[in-house]
Amino acid sequence: MVSTTTLADLAALVGGQLEGDGQVTISGAASISRSQSGDITLADVPRLTKQLDESPASAVVVVTGFPPTAQPRIVVENVHAAFAQIVSHFRPQYTSACSGCSESAHIASSAQIGPDAVVHPFATIEQEVVIESGAEIHSGVRIMAGCRIGADAILFPNVVLYPGTIIGARSVIHAGAVLGGYGFGYHLVDGAHVRKAQLGTVEIGCDVEIGAGTTIDRGTYDATIIDDGTKIDNHVQIGHNCHIGKHNLICSQVGVAGSCTTGDYVVMAGQVGLCDHLHIGDRAVLGAKAGVMNDVPEDAVFIGAPATPERDQWRMWGHVRQLPNMRRQLKKLCQKLDRESESASDPEQQDAA
Amino acid sequence: MVSTTTLADLAALVGGQLEGDGQVTISGAASISRSQSGDITLADVPRLTKQLDESPASAVVVVTGFPPTAQPRIVVENVHAAFAQIVSHFRPQYTSACSGCSESAHIASSAQIGPDAVVHPFATIEQEVVIESGAEIHSGVRIMAGCRIGADAILFPNVVLYPGTIIGARSVIHAGAVLGGYGFGYHLVDGAHVRKAQLGTVEIGCDVEIGAGTTIDRGTYDATIIDDGTKIDNHVQIGHNCHIGKHNLICSQVGVAGSCTTGDYVVMAGQVGLCDHLHIGDRAVLGAKAGVMNDVPEDAVFIGAPATPERDQWRMWGHVRQLPNMRRQLKKLCQKLDRESESASDPEQQDAA
Amino acid sequence: MVSTTTLADLAALVGGQLEGDGQVTISGAASISRSQSGDITLADVPRLTKQLDESPASAVVVVTGFPPTAQPRIVVENVHAAFAQIVSHFRPQYTSACSGCSESAHIASSAQIGPDAVVHPFATIEQEVVIESGAEIHSGVRIMAGCRIGADAILFPNVVLYPGTIIGARSVIHAGAVLGGYGFGYHLVDGAHVRKAQLGTVEIGCDVEIGAGTTIDRGTYDATIIDDGTKIDNHVQIGHNCHIGKHNLICSQVGVAGSCTTGDYVVMAGQVGLCDHLHIGDRAVLGAKAGVMNDVPEDAVFIGAPATPERDQWRMWGHVRQLPNMRRQLKKLCQKLDRESESASDPEQQDAA
Repeated sequence: MVSTTTLADLAALVGGQLEGDGQVTISGAASISRSQSGDITLADVPRLTKQLDESPASAVVVVTGFPPTAQPRIVVENVHAAFAQIVSHFRPQYTSACSGCSESAHIASSAQIGPDAVVHPFATIEQEVVIESGAEIHSGVRIMAGCRIGADAILFPNVVLYPGTIIGARSVIHAGAVLGGYGFGYHLVDGAHVRKAQLGTVEIGCDVEIGAGTTIDRGTYDATIIDDGTKIDNHVQIGHNCHIGKHNLICSQVGVAGSCTTGDYVVMAGQVGLCDHLHIGDRAVLGAKAGVMNDVPEDAVFIGAPATPERDQWRMWGHVRQLPNMRRQLKKLCQKLDRESESASDPEQQDAA
Repeated sequence: MVSTTTLADLAALVGGQLEGDGQVTISGAASISRSQSGDITLADVPRLTKQLDESPASAVVVVTGFPPTAQPRIVVENVHAAFAQIVSHFRPQYTSACSGCSESAHIASSAQIGPDAVVHPFATIEQEVVIESGAEIHSGVRIMAGCRIGADAILFPNVVLYPGTIIGARSVIHAGAVLGGYGFGYHLVDGAHVRKAQLGTVEIGCDVEIGAGTTIDRGTYDATIIDDGTKIDNHVQIGHNCHIGKHNLICSQVGVAGSCTTGDYVVMAGQVGLCDHLHIGDRAVLGAKAGVMNDVPEDAVFIGAPATPERDQWRMWGHVRQLPNMRRQLKKLCQKLDRESESASDPEQQDAA
Repeated sequence: MVSTTTLADLAALVGGQLEGDGQVTISGAASISRSQSGDITLADVPRLTKQLDESPASAVVVVTGFPPTAQPRIVVENVHAAFAQIVSHFRPQYTSACSGCSESAHIASSAQIGPDAVVHPFATIEQEVVIESGAEIHSGVRIMAGCRIGADAILFPNVVLYPGTIIGARSVIHAGAVLGGYGFGYHLVDGAHVRKAQLGTVEIGCDVEIGAGTTIDRGTYDATIIDDGTKIDNHVQIGHNCHIGKHNLICSQVGVAGSCTTGDYVVMAGQVGLCDHLHIGDRAVLGAKAGVMNDVPEDAVFIGAPATPERDQWRMWGHVRQLPNMRRQLKKLCQKLDRESESASDPEQQDAA
């Protein structure tokens, strides 16, 4: 832990403009809802003014042009960059204590480890693996035969790569992710499910991020591909033979069945599910829990299960909420018409009316 | 395996009242549907009488006041406590064969390991980690720099804690769980998703249980918090900056997006999904597969997607099931009115009628 | 990598009939959509003819009777078997470089390891574990006390088995799966959730396959059972006390709550959820994302949430899509009737009409 400092010193640290008492003592940094007396907090949009007024925080980092605040403040152009610097000042991030290849790692003699690559204790690197310069392989990572890890890639603890998996430069694979497992494909032979060929691989592009516990299955004959710049959250399942495009954002617990393809900049919110062999067009957005059974065109927004264009789905949900009213109206109409038919067919009653 | 025993001995073991032949030989314990001749079984509610009559079990543990049974029996106040004792008699639970710190573990010199703590082979404990007395760190657990593990906590095999994670006393983290991974937050810079600051931590309270494979992301600037006594099942995803209250029950495959907060005693059934920045009030219950898009008040029960108060949702589902009838009624009305208008506007037809 | 070869040689390799120029040089194998010049591809159904015509592939493996193709070809009875052989020719699958028990594994002295079993580095095998002949235990697998692993079973890296878990012969457990964790069952005592007994085990039959990251909880008193021949995909959760029948197919991200039973040949598509204590009959099929709240009979197909027989559910969805029309019709009827009543009750207007 770092000792306390003054607001003036923090303003100097981030190159911001000090407004108010620079000698106020700051001992920590926290977001508004968590901040306490002694903390500096941040506010990036004017609607936070009220929350800020009620906050016990002792100072605040605000964007240029922010309304007046009760607290003394540091004014900057980029609130988040400045605040991140301040947080790191109070709570320095840990850096790896490891360099080179740990003697407690298991590295096959045919593996090639680039200069400046780091291999932590208890990592397993099998035959013919290539790890390029600057890559970091954390403790307990299992890299099976023939995999290639690009420069400056990071594999967090206990990641597992099946044979032949390729990871691009600067990609980050989070703890416990499993890449290259067998696809889920069987045919029935004499009453038993027999596994189809699982001879393909997994190829992860550059600057990809893959979340903790996520699984990506190898292709049948080819590679399952995740293209450059795509970010995948935790617990996602990508089936065999998929080709996910560039710069997709795939949120937690999404399941993509086999042989799907996506364009670039596709967004899938949490718990979305895709049937197999679908194509999702460039920039399409799939809302949380969408159950997608057909191709989705470019720039479309689909929600619901079965997935439907957003506007239509909201309308349908609106109509469903009107069902009690509709039934009531319908009932009245029926009664009314019944009464009328009765009176029409009954002269006595008609006279009496 | 333990040799057979008599029912009288088992009655003595659990301090229960023997009814029937105490000399019957018992060789195992199983629940009713799985029990075989020679087994003792259990019945905690009267409606099990019939199933019990048809069971081949040789004896039964019942609660005081249970109706007459075909089998000789042991009568107790707490059926489950007594039966657990009997099961453990026939199939003793394994206790850890490990004590102290394994020489095959990797422990940084700056880590502090409390007395009576156990560290199994191939565990990795990085710099400045503190493990308090009585904690058990199983094989393959990865505790990264600066984490703190409370007294008597248990980390099952292959758990991964990212730097700075805090685990409270007596908490249990199941195999393969990953705590403290980066939150899923990016901003678009020149067409590429750039990761936002992920400088926070994860803080797990006391007496918390976290399921196998569950992931809890670190906060942006602060901690993601799981409060005392909360129990989380397998495959759950808790996003960055969430604050889960005390004594929540969160079932398998639930996904909670970033910055959500919950009160105390909240229950989320399996596969529930929450949008980000929601608040779920004390004692609220979210039914299985609920897709929650708005705050949920205290004591409310919400189901469906979009999540809706239980009563309203069941009503809507009921109305939807009535749609075929409604369409039929509507069609008839239209036909009827059409006929009437036709006859009204057609004097010929009217005369003919 | 293997050097190029001729189509004639490949035809000889797979015992197929060569049609066209056998001297064409082949340097790789890929499916149609991924194939490039120099590749051999495959086509198993006639509707691929057009795609094949447009493909740059230099040759193709086709089934007997396939329509004429632009490319020279190899004709076989079993396209997939032949193509798998060709893929393996160009990209030989890695075989384990490990034999016997690694000196870097931790094996308790009371464990029994059968002949021809393989234990990789950094695997942990605790007391009284039995591993039968031919089983392969990959790196980082944690086998806790008293487990039994059948002959020729394969446990991929970082699998965790809690004490007492049993794996049948030839079963395959993929990376990071966790078997035998505690079930999610608590009772409330003085405001705190107290874990119920978790004294049972997990028993996996023969020829079972379990996906990466999948979790199967131990039974309360008995075993949670997965029967022979059943295949389970990645990220699946099977709750405590379940008995899954033979030859089931359970796709990714399915959640089965506690004490469910299934017949044989049941299929559950992705992201299906089952409430606890349900029975799913033989050969029943549960569609993707189905939310099952009641027993499902033999041979039934259920979809939707709440799950409904397929035909009824599609009809309901169809009706819901008709709601805008229904509302329009209903509105018109109401207006019409209102007009008529008005004119009926207003002699002036009636005259004017």
